[in-house]
Amino acid sequence: MRTTLHRFFTTDPADVSGLSRAIAEGTVNPMDIVAIIGKTEGNGGGNDFTRVLATMALSQMLAAYLDCRPEVVEDRIVLSLSGGSEGVTAPHILVFTVSGRAVEQPYPVKRLAVATGHTRSFHAQEVGRMAMVRETARAVTGLMHALRIASEDVHLVQVKGAIPAPAIAGDADAGQLRCDMAWSRGASALGVALALGEVAESRLSDAAINQDWSLYSSRASVSAKPLLRRSEIVLFANSCHWEGDLVIAHGVMRDIIDVPAIHVVLNQLGLQPIHGQLMPADAERVLAVFAKSDADPRGSIRHRRHTMWTDADISDMRYSRCVVSALLAGITGETGVYVSTRAEHQGPQGGGPVAVIGYAS
Amino acid sequence: MRTTLHRFFTTDPADVSGLSRAIAEGTVNPMDIVAIIGKTEGNGGGNDFTRVLATMALSQMLAAYLDCRPEVVEDRIVLSLSGGSEGVTAPHILVFTVSGRAVEQPYPVKRLAVATGHTRSFHAQEVGRMAMVRETARAVTGLMHALRIASEDVHLVQVKGAIPAPAIAGDADAGQLRCDMAWSRGASALGVALALGEVAESRLSDAAINQDWSLYSSRASVSAKPLLRRSEIVLFANSCHWEGDLVIAHGVMRDIIDVPAIHVVLNQLGLQPIHGQLMPADAERVLAVFAKSDADPRGSIRHRRHTMWTDADISDMRYSRCVVSALLAGITGETGVYVSTRAEHQGPQGGGPVAVIGYAS
Amino acid sequence: MRTTLHRFFTTDPADVSGLSRAIAEGTVNPMDIVAIIGKTEGNGGGNDFTRVLATMALSQMLAAYLDCRPEVVEDRIVLSLSGGSEGVTAPHILVFTVSGRAVEQPYPVKRLAVATGHTRSFHAQEVGRMAMVRETARAVTGLMHALRIASEDVHLVQVKGAIPAPAIAGDADAGQLRCDMAWSRGASALGVALALGEVAESRLSDAAINQDWSLYSSRASVSAKPLLRRSEIVLFANSCHWEGDLVIAHGVMRDIIDVPAIHVVLNQLGLQPIHGQLMPADAERVLAVFAKSDADPRGSIRHRRHTMWTDADISDMRYSRCVVSALLAGITGETGVYVSTRAEHQGPQGGGPVAVIGYAS
Amino acid sequence: MRTTLHRFFTTDPADVSGLSRAIAEGTVNPMDIVAIIGKTEGNGGGNDFTRVLATMALSQMLAAYLDCRPEVVEDRIVLSLSGGSEGVTAPHILVFTVSGRAVEQPYPVKRLAVATGHTRSFHAQEVGRMAMVRETARAVTGLMHALRIASEDVHLVQVKGAIPAPAIAGDADAGQLRCDMAWSRGASALGVALALGEVAESRLSDAAINQDWSLYSSRASVSAKPLLRRSEIVLFANSCHWEGDLVIAHGVMRDIIDVPAIHVVLNQLGLQPIHGQLMPADAERVLAVFAKSDADPRGSIRHRRHTMWTDADISDMRYSRCVVSALLAGITGETGVYVSTRAEHQGPQGGGPVAVIGYAS
Repeated sequence: MRTTLHRFFTTDPADVSGLSRAIAEGTVNPMDIVAIIGKTEGNGGGNDFTRVLATMALSQMLAAYLDCRPEVVEDRIVLSLSGGSEGVTAPHILVFTVSGRAVEQPYPVKRLAVATGHTRSFHAQEVGRMAMVRETARAVTGLMHALRIASEDVHLVQVKGAIPAPAIAGDADAGQLRCDMAWSRGASALGVALALGEVAESRLSDAAINQDWSLYSSRASVSAKPLLRRSEIVLFANSCHWEGDLVIAHGVMRDIIDVPAIHVVLNQLGLQPIHGQLMPADAERVLAVFAKSDADPRGSIRHRRHTMWTDADISDMRYSRCVVSALLAGITGETGVYVSTRAEHQGPQGGGPVAVIGYAS
Repeated sequence: MRTTLHRFFTTDPADVSGLSRAIAEGTVNPMDIVAIIGKTEGNGGGNDFTRVLATMALSQMLAAYLDCRPEVVEDRIVLSLSGGSEGVTAPHILVFTVSGRAVEQPYPVKRLAVATGHTRSFHAQEVGRMAMVRETARAVTGLMHALRIASEDVHLVQVKGAIPAPAIAGDADAGQLRCDMAWSRGASALGVALALGEVAESRLSDAAINQDWSLYSSRASVSAKPLLRRSEIVLFANSCHWEGDLVIAHGVMRDIIDVPAIHVVLNQLGLQPIHGQLMPADAERVLAVFAKSDADPRGSIRHRRHTMWTDADISDMRYSRCVVSALLAGITGETGVYVSTRAEHQGPQGGGPVAVIGYAS
Repeated sequence: MRTTLHRFFTTDPADVSGLSRAIAEGTVNPMDIVAIIGKTEGNGGGNDFTRVLATMALSQMLAAYLDCRPEVVEDRIVLSLSGGSEGVTAPHILVFTVSGRAVEQPYPVKRLAVATGHTRSFHAQEVGRMAMVRETARAVTGLMHALRIASEDVHLVQVKGAIPAPAIAGDADAGQLRCDMAWSRGASALGVALALGEVAESRLSDAAINQDWSLYSSRASVSAKPLLRRSEIVLFANSCHWEGDLVIAHGVMRDIIDVPAIHVVLNQLGLQPIHGQLMPADAERVLAVFAKSDADPRGSIRHRRHTMWTDADISDMRYSRCVVSALLAGITGETGVYVSTRAEHQGPQGGGPVAVIGYAS
Repeated sequence: MRTTLHRFFTTDPADVSGLSRAIAEGTVNPMDIVAIIGKTEGNGGGNDFTRVLATMALSQMLAAYLDCRPEVVEDRIVLSLSGGSEGVTAPHILVFTVSGRAVEQPYPVKRLAVATGHTRSFHAQEVGRMAMVRETARAVTGLMHALRIASEDVHLVQVKGAIPAPAIAGDADAGQLRCDMAWSRGASALGVALALGEVAESRLSDAAINQDWSLYSSRASVSAKPLLRRSEIVLFANSCHWEGDLVIAHGVMRDIIDVPAIHVVLNQLGLQPIHGQLMPADAERVLAVFAKSDADPRGSIRHRRHTMWTDADISDMRYSRCVVSALLAGITGETGVYVSTRAEHQGPQGGGPVAVIGYAS
């Protein structure tokens, strides 16, 4: 089997012309698409409708090719759009296809493998609690088995966390439910950490979620989506059962200006920045860059005050995405980077995971 | 003569406690202060009153030590506060003192020299025109002569550009005057470029100002201040007639993600980032970092679209400062960086000058 | 013939459930819909994609009922969505249907009549100039003739102004073209004013557009849409050839706090606020409220300074919509009001037109 | 005794020229000033430094007249600056003076009386709890006794609520302390309600604070100030022991568009809006307008959705101030109104108190 990745830069959130043309030209087989991940240019907040718009535009376009109704496209393809292209970020979508057959005999080198899946549906009471942690871990483990890979071959687990509506309206306000985005992200990330063996189950509990920041995954990247009933998962790994020319590597930023962590990831792909930045020929070898960002909630970075949390006009989320995308673009020389924010249990507090997909050297 | 530089991180724009304590302890002699340059945490726009607040707080505190009224402190010390500490930037002030006597015999090495001055008062009609270019050049040339240095020894010319009120109210609206911030910045920067020999006088004209972007200074850093009648100038150079342990270097970012340009400046100071970032011991050798930023007005960076100009909620100015400060902090490992925005004729379009003051190696 | 108006409050820009249900239940005949006008909850700026989203959602839903492709729904129905529901505004859509046959014999009373149409396609060079003024006037006059009404019976002319792409890319930057939103709005509004006899043709010229603010329409409400080639027009009038239970009235706010102007409009509909606000039974008689808003560009309101133009964090457009919608909601007791901003030649400078559709008393 | 009130419109937060001139001309005796209340043009959030700037500018100017150091001006005069002049609000300061001697014999009519005072210093543990409620009530009761007035004569109690620093750093994070702005406002408002007999003591408890919204004061207007150790109080009443030409009236808005409530307050002052707005001669009889605003946290107004809480770009606080100031300005015809936001226990949920000072008719 092999994974291909096509990156299309967009002119606006509803722009599907690049993918549409690639399908028309035969470059992309729509039946092979397993996931589309992208950045849209909204504010990334609760009233960011650019995600809905992009999802609607993609579903409408793909429905014709897949011969289904637009509403069911998401049952077949994970559409994971993230709002917020602050600063230098160029809005874009990443289209992943999987084709071919699995081989029994391993290849001599590992190549990018992608698997998608989902958890069972959650009850509102389970969100942000161990039930969500365990079910997420179960689903991730299932994907690893399906790919026949070990934990260390997993480099990125992109999760869209469920936030089902409470069965009884108003329950969410009762103070007992953890049914919001931060809880869904935190529990999902710990679920990934548990599946990957990054955190011992004995250390996990309802009380530890979104509380004990020493527990985290280096490879989880979680967003949460209100009214989603089951969490959607896209797992990226390197596998000796897959062929192709793509590989993935990851690392962890210890804080929001941890430039060396990014360099180390590139080094793992055989890429070496010169004077801090990839040369153009090397920049073209980088096809996708993912990171989570956080404005350190303790209010300081390396003992210096920052003002991302005290600015009443601009959200810390917009600032932190702007900072991390600037670093990723500055180092890779490519502004088509994907940064999403609020990284509960995704990397250490104030930091976050980074993953890069590139051409194998 | 020797220059000293003290950096004080602030808790808010009115916080002068660091400098005040340093004066009380004898670390800083208030009579030696020639300039205070700093970042405050406002929005950097027309309604950013943090600059006024910081200036008022500094003037009030220094007046007691200088035995003068607060209103005249600025006649003796250049107070250059810039609003906008987006992203990782730690608000701070840089206090420059000059002490000692000039020596006739040159030292074997060049050290940081600082000179302050101002243009004559301008008429509103002169702003943004050749009269302002020439008078700014004259003043800069005067400072170079006073320091007995050549053009190539100048590494940063910080200008607070004049914007005098029109003699006749309402004139500014008549469409003939260029009496606004962009024009004041553009003409002042070209004045610096002319003085430093970066641009030939024959290429300069009223028509070229804020029009011909091939003309620029690599060392000008200009802000503009409404109602200021004469432009204030702080010139930084390396001189063999000055002693001390500080030196300055500069470079030019060709675009907003020109990381290599920043590396080259650090290299000139004998500093070498490891994995893209200075090690802590080296980071401590960096005392001040200055840059101008601009969200490329052509709407793209390296042929990729950016959205800094099309976001109706957040100004391009806040974004571009956030991006450049992230890069500077990421590379130096120090968030106490000074980035100010809108760089007409300061570096090429979409880019801008960078200067770093550090301990001599 | 008769006009009906259904107002549906929305939960988000893509929410078409109210109209969809009404069609399913037979309350609204989709074949009769001539125009849908609505407020969505975006920022109303260039990057407000909620309009696109609402348009896409409406087109997709209506296409099924109209048995056409979504792309051609707008050829049959004017979809006029306006972003920005600042403050108390409740996002909503107004669905206008026209049914029945024209009668020769006039009715004893006038009732709401609606006509839709469009101009010819424009060249980029015509936008913001007399060619656009005259063609808009021609189209409006045509609609008046079609409705067999006189100028004084017209109470609101809603225009979506064309902004065609320049034939030669880059032409718009050449400084000769007026091909932007402000110019399209200004020329379109003057076109309405010319058709309605509010402004003498002799006073109109290319130079007067967006310059001579003494020229304005009291009944034009214009927005502009990039890449639209022909302007779309919805004309609202009272006609003795139409029956039904709806009537429309209009007035002009002289400045942004001209509350009496709003009262006068309500009075014309037989409605009388008590202690400044309609009683609930009367509030229910109001079905649609339209207004244009403007933060006075001169910087003051009744000789007092306002700060809507000097706030670098929030656009004057968001403020002015918030102010006018608060007044309209406060007076009518109903937050489902439609306010759109930037009112070049629509009412006097700093003010704007107001129109109300209600049940006939 | 008599109260005078001078209103000065400002050009920026540091503008004290109006008051300074009035003092120089003898119109205002600086020794008589008891309180200065004003609106500045910041964002009203945690990083709004316009309040500090205005306070510093006023303190510096008044110190010269009062022959004291700027730091102690606030010990003699309550300086209560509130940031946020959204929409039509004209930034201004209200200067209250008290002069003359108390008379034993009551006058035939009641006139505006003002008293200022403060609570004892609070411990961090007391903020947001009954200790703060009771001490605030005690202080307010003391001011009523000093003025020899009954509860029903009190029309506005302006409180700047204390937020002392925790004795042990980090305690505030422990989750036990209520030491933030919302808690300080809530407890202070209930203290006023208790003193004025608006709420029975038996219904008050730690648990009821910021929880039971049926408990509220119609006359409290509370802001809170970090690091303030004792709450500062300005009480406005009508008293038959005071003379002069000013009176005060108050009312309560039941929701954010309760226009009739504002009309009723004006009526109490003998003022009658015509077509919803005071005629210019009547507008001049209004000297000060105070209100608290709140974007209803339940997300709707009169059963219609509003978007003030779901907008990730603009704070609900800025919206609600914009809405209420628009209504007050629209009704009075005067944009020099004072609206401050977040009204815990100040009026019913989603509403807030209104008070107007005008010339006696």
